[in-house]
Amino acid sequence: MTTAVRKVNEETELRQLIDEWTKALRAKDIDGVMANYAPDVVVFGITGPLKYSGWKQHREFWENMFKTIDGPIDYEMRDLTITAKGDVAFSHGINRMGGRSKKGPEDTWIRVTVCYRRTNGKWLVTHEHVSVPFDMKTGQALMDLKP
Amino acid sequence: MTTAVRKVNEETELRQLIDEWTKALRAKDIDGVMANYAPDVVVFGITGPLKYSGWKQHREFWENMFKTIDGPIDYEMRDLTITAKGDVAFSHGINRMGGRSKKGPEDTWIRVTVCYRRTNGKWLVTHEHVSVPFDMKTGQALMDLKP
Repeated sequence: MTTAVRKVNEETELRQLIDEWTKALRAKDIDGVMANYAPDVVVFGITGPLKYSGWKQHREFWENMFKTIDGPIDYEMRDLTITAKGDVAFSHGINRMGGRSKKGPEDTWIRVTVCYRRTNGKWLVTHEHVSVPFDMKTGQALMDLKP
Repeated sequence: MTTAVRKVNEETELRQLIDEWTKALRAKDIDGVMANYAPDVVVFGITGPLKYSGWKQHREFWENMFKTIDGPIDYEMRDLTITAKGDVAFSHGINRMGGRSKKGPEDTWIRVTVCYRRTNGKWLVTHEHVSVPFDMKTGQALMDLKP
């Protein structure tokens, strides 16, 4: 197998993993969402703390998040870029996350970077960094920026 | 050369690149800071916009940032994790950035994720994501969290 073919295959594999994760997220399928996180995944989340580690902690984050939205989650990806070769990969994009919360419909564009490691033939997410930037003058998180 | 040895070499190479970048940052050496960014680097910065792309734009960011600090920059890395194999790599850590600004001494712990690609034997940063989380209740960026 040539390097070029392998590269295409790795990107295709990652794209499929991301597609399946997105479908699970929209449906609030917690097992589907958690299927590809590594046991020791390191998360830099959109709200505090600075960081947390571990599959169980991340599952708790998603379970709590799902409770804040009534019905399905609206999730759109923009500018998705996947870099994959051998057993290491990363992806980044600007994603829109929306849904109906207790406060009414909400909709925020977020920056998402995901890092992957392939072990025994299976890709796992070992790091996830999700954020919005803040306004230097007011210190407020910028929740209404659009790409 | 075995895979194990290659892996060690790649991590060593990346650690050296990060060490040199950190030295350049502390000294506000703009050419040193910019030495390993790819021409089309995609940046998710700590303040707005959501994203920007390009070496020139990133150089302008650093030049403007350097002007806001009097004297050298105080930079400390915590929990640096490097994953590198073949020609793709990523690193993440919690870093403290400080210095004397017009408002007085400032000091903030930030989350930093950096993604790399090796082309023609040279590692280049193709993506950088830097952020702080925000407080869900107030919407304020959390600038005073400690790891």
